[in-house]
Amino acid sequence: MKALVYHGPGLKTLEDCPKPVIQAPSDAIVKMVKTTICGTDLHILKGDVATCAPGRILGHEGVGIIDSVGPAVTVFKPGDRVMISCISSCGKCEYCRRGMYSHCTTGGWILGNEIDGTQAEYVRTPHADTSLYPIPEGADEEALVMLSDILPTGFECGVLNGKVAPGATVAIVGAGPVGLAALLTAQFYSPAEIIMVDLDDNRLGIARQFGATHTVNSRDGNAAAEVKSLTGGRGVDTAIEAVGVPATFLLCQDMVAPGGVIANVGVHGQKVDLHLETLWAHNISITTRLVDTVSTPMLLKTVQAGKVDPSRLITHHFRLDQILDAYDTFGRAAATQALKVIISM
Amino acid sequence: MKALVYHGPGLKTLEDCPKPVIQAPSDAIVKMVKTTICGTDLHILKGDVATCAPGRILGHEGVGIIDSVGPAVTVFKPGDRVMISCISSCGKCEYCRRGMYSHCTTGGWILGNEIDGTQAEYVRTPHADTSLYPIPEGADEEALVMLSDILPTGFECGVLNGKVAPGATVAIVGAGPVGLAALLTAQFYSPAEIIMVDLDDNRLGIARQFGATHTVNSRDGNAAAEVKSLTGGRGVDTAIEAVGVPATFLLCQDMVAPGGVIANVGVHGQKVDLHLETLWAHNISITTRLVDTVSTPMLLKTVQAGKVDPSRLITHHFRLDQILDAYDTFGRAAATQALKVIISM
Amino acid sequence: MKALVYHGPGLKTLEDCPKPVIQAPSDAIVKMVKTTICGTDLHILKGDVATCAPGRILGHEGVGIIDSVGPAVTVFKPGDRVMISCISSCGKCEYCRRGMYSHCTTGGWILGNEIDGTQAEYVRTPHADTSLYPIPEGADEEALVMLSDILPTGFECGVLNGKVAPGATVAIVGAGPVGLAALLTAQFYSPAEIIMVDLDDNRLGIARQFGATHTVNSRDGNAAAEVKSLTGGRGVDTAIEAVGVPATFLLCQDMVAPGGVIANVGVHGQKVDLHLETLWAHNISITTRLVDTVSTPMLLKTVQAGKVDPSRLITHHFRLDQILDAYDTFGRAAATQALKVIISM
Amino acid sequence: MKALVYHGPGLKTLEDCPKPVIQAPSDAIVKMVKTTICGTDLHILKGDVATCAPGRILGHEGVGIIDSVGPAVTVFKPGDRVMISCISSCGKCEYCRRGMYSHCTTGGWILGNEIDGTQAEYVRTPHADTSLYPIPEGADEEALVMLSDILPTGFECGVLNGKVAPGATVAIVGAGPVGLAALLTAQFYSPAEIIMVDLDDNRLGIARQFGATHTVNSRDGNAAAEVKSLTGGRGVDTAIEAVGVPATFLLCQDMVAPGGVIANVGVHGQKVDLHLETLWAHNISITTRLVDTVSTPMLLKTVQAGKVDPSRLITHHFRLDQILDAYDTFGRAAATQALKVIISM
Repeated sequence: MKALVYHGPGLKTLEDCPKPVIQAPSDAIVKMVKTTICGTDLHILKGDVATCAPGRILGHEGVGIIDSVGPAVTVFKPGDRVMISCISSCGKCEYCRRGMYSHCTTGGWILGNEIDGTQAEYVRTPHADTSLYPIPEGADEEALVMLSDILPTGFECGVLNGKVAPGATVAIVGAGPVGLAALLTAQFYSPAEIIMVDLDDNRLGIARQFGATHTVNSRDGNAAAEVKSLTGGRGVDTAIEAVGVPATFLLCQDMVAPGGVIANVGVHGQKVDLHLETLWAHNISITTRLVDTVSTPMLLKTVQAGKVDPSRLITHHFRLDQILDAYDTFGRAAATQALKVIISM
Repeated sequence: MKALVYHGPGLKTLEDCPKPVIQAPSDAIVKMVKTTICGTDLHILKGDVATCAPGRILGHEGVGIIDSVGPAVTVFKPGDRVMISCISSCGKCEYCRRGMYSHCTTGGWILGNEIDGTQAEYVRTPHADTSLYPIPEGADEEALVMLSDILPTGFECGVLNGKVAPGATVAIVGAGPVGLAALLTAQFYSPAEIIMVDLDDNRLGIARQFGATHTVNSRDGNAAAEVKSLTGGRGVDTAIEAVGVPATFLLCQDMVAPGGVIANVGVHGQKVDLHLETLWAHNISITTRLVDTVSTPMLLKTVQAGKVDPSRLITHHFRLDQILDAYDTFGRAAATQALKVIISM
Repeated sequence: MKALVYHGPGLKTLEDCPKPVIQAPSDAIVKMVKTTICGTDLHILKGDVATCAPGRILGHEGVGIIDSVGPAVTVFKPGDRVMISCISSCGKCEYCRRGMYSHCTTGGWILGNEIDGTQAEYVRTPHADTSLYPIPEGADEEALVMLSDILPTGFECGVLNGKVAPGATVAIVGAGPVGLAALLTAQFYSPAEIIMVDLDDNRLGIARQFGATHTVNSRDGNAAAEVKSLTGGRGVDTAIEAVGVPATFLLCQDMVAPGGVIANVGVHGQKVDLHLETLWAHNISITTRLVDTVSTPMLLKTVQAGKVDPSRLITHHFRLDQILDAYDTFGRAAATQALKVIISM
Repeated sequence: MKALVYHGPGLKTLEDCPKPVIQAPSDAIVKMVKTTICGTDLHILKGDVATCAPGRILGHEGVGIIDSVGPAVTVFKPGDRVMISCISSCGKCEYCRRGMYSHCTTGGWILGNEIDGTQAEYVRTPHADTSLYPIPEGADEEALVMLSDILPTGFECGVLNGKVAPGATVAIVGAGPVGLAALLTAQFYSPAEIIMVDLDDNRLGIARQFGATHTVNSRDGNAAAEVKSLTGGRGVDTAIEAVGVPATFLLCQDMVAPGGVIANVGVHGQKVDLHLETLWAHNISITTRLVDTVSTPMLLKTVQAGKVDPSRLITHHFRLDQILDAYDTFGRAAATQALKVIISM
């Protein structure tokens, strides 16, 4: 089968690989229908993800059709259409039982990282019963590709951890795909204001279309002051960090109101300064989270009910044999205005 | 009347001051019976608290008897015995209505800071109805001095924010009075293990008497490893920072389990490093809080029911005319083994 | 001044009464601008409310202008435009401090019940600082009349107690004003389905306009079965009872899913059957609540942000000298299709 | 093997049955070491449990040793010592993923009810990985028999649902085994008062030994008044119903304070009166629950840490060949003063 293989920093090829086989009783083999590329895949290609060894098929998102299942799989059978969670969850360990699937002792984020992933014609998915989700009749399968990772990431790490509430004020720092996913799902809770902060005016324009009530370009260094001004001097109840660098985390500290939350979504590569000399008395919370995808059933219901349309995040379409072009388009997002790209098999 | 007055960094005197008078309809004048000294008073005397101007009577804790009340006071009348909260709360502003009394727009921590305090024969208490608490018949008034600040601080900032739960594991870094208050009140929730970490073996011994299941002396730099070892390699569900320096906040980061909470109690004077390059994916929370004293009614009930005995924190007794000795004893705690000192009028 | 006075069951007159005066330091006198009539006023007129004595001026809703204030009032001054909460809250007692203003030991629902109310040219409001709310610049004052009682009642007793959540299923039994207020505010949380149940097809039609995803006329006795059918056989996550008779409470028991909530809003005049022989094992909750209006600040923000338009509940307008007509119109709602009526001074 | 078999109302025998065999990949066969008898077993023997057909081996509690496992079982292997949950949980279905194991679509309470149970030398346990718990090294296995059902039932249905909190007041109506289990586990949260109500002075005496702060014999019909008197006229924050008849549920309604919770634990055989004509405005909650055993890992930690000693519930010991005597002793509890009986194989 064809698959996109990582061969070390900067190196990737589309090549022929053996079709995966069932290895454990709870495995399923899924014939991929559509997948996408994540910012994390770009991190791997920079060599930043030590757990991902050369030779690995990348990708941890997508929808497909069950090809075969191991003897312990009871929820799915060949022919079922499924959405693949980026997080594999055994459903049995202490962390899974607490809803912290990201820390599953035999799962977590392993697809396209520690085991072969979804940018291929077939993928082996461990713990299939608790890591795949049935696609409802008549659903928009492309939209559901967004439920593998980006929508639950924005929702769980940003919106749920950030305790977004009716009438409250929210700032989202970073209008990339995950920041926009937080923007879309924050609206489940009817906050009074959602202020999107970014350096890219195109993305801020998209944010306004997606429901941001205000946008702030942070290039001039006054973003925190502008956010405070937009909130009567108080700052925001929820500041969602969706970039992952020290400067944006600092910005969140400068704009959060007393009693507020900084919900970190960004993947950080270095330590940051935390100004406890001020914040110790501000009654704030800071949360971090690798997405658990525990909200996936809820998100599926909201998509089916038309409460959110995740297909709005999709800007480009490719075939699997064009995946190198897809990587190029996604990797030059500022120039191509790409958000999420769909790759169809 | 006699009062302890701050005259700038390093300078304090016991001197004659005018007896305070009612200034606003919601004020009460309280004749002090017992007060104490807080670590924050020492901060003021170092010149670290910019809001506290020379000439200020210090002190924000204590019990007393209502001397007179303004016309808007309906809960108390002269002769009532009361416990004074360190936090003044108007009960009307947005923050008070949310239970965040520490950020009351006309109150908060002002006693012995922005207005004259309790280390005196009389004190004016603003917002009396919502900042004083009736002393139950037969209560141990010395024990209740601990409810002005230290017990709610350890409980709200450490135990409640830290979500201490039955069967869980807790580490408290810092066995000073506030760390010990957290230790006493953490036991309300029956955690399986409470590990106390400090540099002072005497205080660790007291912690064991107060209910710590394990103690770790952190002088050799292996405290995080020892705490992990005591928790089966996982780390603790709750790490309470009760010191206020970068090294102890770092220690908490090294010992918190995935899914856990770092509850900051310490007063920090400088920024700290936050290792988001690791913690971004650990599903943790970090909380900060200036005590709200919103839990005071609950704490009064637990004291009355014998569920906690805060008088265990009291090591020394002085009269008001000995208050300079009391400061000396409290300020040299390592040598004197002082925890909390009681000053009686 | 003119006022609507209750003179015993079935008897009410519009008559001249003395203008109220400040009685306690925390009182305000409010010059009424607009008021409305509540279903509870009709209960009083039936003689069902024992606490309301003949001679009482009715009404507990409205907006007005501060005429004068007592010496303890610090938040408002004459000339301020205010919305009057139906619940008077001292902000000091144990219940107020817990956010349970409905059980305030010197307040609660007393306006137009135990003390004179708002269907008059002037009203005395006790505990003014914590029972009145400033009207934001440019707000629609008629819409804010709905925030005195009906919107927080539907929201707190129905939506908040009912734990309405994104993607969840909700049934509201009773499409009267309060049921419709629950319908409007349930949408803050983006449930997948809101099923409105009533006997009146006109009101069901309004419910569809207001956002109900399905409507069920319960006249044929199959409502529970229809609701179950609409929810895949499971029943609803939240059943909101907004009528107040045994039959509708029973209907809620028949349609709630395992793990769900029955949130009672209706005012009941007799006991009901609770089928614990079935429900003991269904993991449900039943909640009751007299509105606390603790959510009023949040609701004001949502109205100002355009997240909800409570003026949609207003169907008729009258002047104070037409208030007997207003009662007639409101009392014959099935015939007049009245929801809420506005009475302007 | 020997097993206790139900043969219709009033009929049970100890007889030879075939040893169970693995039927599904996730099954385990457990060699029983100790079991017990539950009040529910007596309900079955009265013919009150329609799902339990004649021919069924009874029992849903106990500890044992893994004899064999199906191919999908990954957590356990033959020879492992395990505690058997009364609730079988697949870990995969919507209810299990929400922590509502009692409503598992292929599990729930099936042991000794819809499938053969634990009062036998061997038992087949479905969904073994998520329905059995490893016994920690050195644990008191008899004490752990109490964790199969009674301790989580008292804790989840009574204490957790009842929101028992530090300083709060609790009444438990019914001092049978499950009421006493609620009493033991309520103390995890340090309530100020726990008032035990029963008709049997012997059981009330045991309740005092187990930590009740007050006891009330309800035989004279004044129990609600006595409980109110003990709580300053307010009533209790938490009323736990642990009997299951209309009179005791009514008693809970009469003693719950505004803002409180009635947590139903009892198994009810008929409808009850709910006095909504009073309670509609009392801001209370009523909860029902079939135990989920989702708290079992937490309870195991509290037992291991010595925070609770469930072996205090054990009053009598028998061998499997004496199980008819054990039923007799347990069934005549008032006379024999039996709480829980242990049956050893």
